Amino acid sequence: MNTSTNSNADHRLICTVDVVLLTLRDAQLQVLLIKREREPFAGALALPGGYVHASVDQDCADAARRVLHDKAGLPSPYLEQLASFSGPARDPRGWSVSVAYVALVAAPQAPQPGQHWLPVDELPQLPFDHGRIVANAVDRVRNKSQYSSLPVHLCAEPFTLPQLHGIYEALLGEPINAVSFRRKMDELGMLEPVPGAKLAQGPHRPAQLYRLRDEYRRTLSLAGRGLNA
Amino acid sequence: MNTSTNSNADHRLICTVDVVLLTLRDAQLQVLLIKREREPFAGALALPGGYVHASVDQDCADAARRVLHDKAGLPSPYLEQLASFSGPARDPRGWSVSVAYVALVAAPQAPQPGQHWLPVDELPQLPFDHGRIVANAVDRVRNKSQYSSLPVHLCAEPFTLPQLHGIYEALLGEPINAVSFRRKMDELGMLEPVPGAKLAQGPHRPAQLYRLRDEYRRTLSLAGRGLNA
Repeated sequence: MNTSTNSNADHRLICTVDVVLLTLRDAQLQVLLIKREREPFAGALALPGGYVHASVDQDCADAARRVLHDKAGLPSPYLEQLASFSGPARDPRGWSVSVAYVALVAAPQAPQPGQHWLPVDELPQLPFDHGRIVANAVDRVRNKSQYSSLPVHLCAEPFTLPQLHGIYEALLGEPINAVSFRRKMDELGMLEPVPGAKLAQGPHRPAQLYRLRDEYRRTLSLAGRGLNA
Repeated sequence: MNTSTNSNADHRLICTVDVVLLTLRDAQLQVLLIKREREPFAGALALPGGYVHASVDQDCADAARRVLHDKAGLPSPYLEQLASFSGPARDPRGWSVSVAYVALVAAPQAPQPGQHWLPVDELPQLPFDHGRIVANAVDRVRNKSQYSSLPVHLCAEPFTLPQLHGIYEALLGEPINAVSFRRKMDELGMLEPVPGAKLAQGPHRPAQLYRLRDEYRRTLSLAGRGLNA
């Protein structure tokens, strides 16, 4: 037996990442769950997640992107670290730390086999502590949406301001005054008009189409006050 | 060799906690650094931290409290999870995940041997990625102080409203209107007067002394708008 390996092993724990991938469909916030192929909890719906691989991952965010790519077939959506969840009982394999991420995408086309989008307010009991992780992510997204560009990542580009307004209202679950909404979007400064692109809808004047400015694809624009302040 | 131990070992990584313990001294935000007794970086000043011990810690927050108690001699100050920092290069011992916490205390008496309180804006280069962790913690604390009860944990109890006002101003580095400050403290609802306790100062009318309400010792009270909104 190699003593140094043993003493190292005492300090080495199961490290995983879990990703709460959210979208807005039918004006509902929905989360991606995937049917687990392996034990523990084989066959159950759970968050996409997996071990951190020290040999390939540059950090936990890198591991989260790899998991999203491999298990959800998604390239690189907006991703931010949520929190770590840890303890002896959350994973039957042993004392574990999971670094959880929240990711947002515009409503995707039909889900792939094994993928299930479920409304966050109507989830079944989830394995591990995934229920708690999802609840934590939803709180974070709703809170941050009050004063930031976060909800833009739920909107397919390009979009009109009224479309984005609808996304914010659906997410926050309350009406937002259209004039103060436009002012807040100006203040956030994260949108740019798509040159020459307008959307004609019914009898109205065609609406300008917008997209997210490149510098806000990976970071947020934050306002000093909330949308309704 | 035990194969199952080996295959487990692939997924087992170095897990540590690091604690950014902050206080306000001489109207400056200061962080506790401790001289490292062991390699790596023996002799250097670094954040109090250590391995997560699966056999004794109930979760990473528990590990952070143990580290604070053992290395800083502090019972259980206000503590919240900051973020995880991970990767192959941040710790010379190998690929590691550190779950970092931020903790706040009222200005302590003289530091113990080996403990050093340094202003966060005048730090030397720190080992590991501790410089980045401290910067991240300071950003978090200053941002959250705009709209929450967080700075109360920097104030020795009991305190007068003008004393607490001074703490908020020192932390935010800007003047705060006294009337809107009192209104915000009312809105946050986290203080209670200490019955019959007043502080006499010079020729002024004695000022009421306050303390934090018990329910806000471990969670924050949040305002809808910032202090200057």
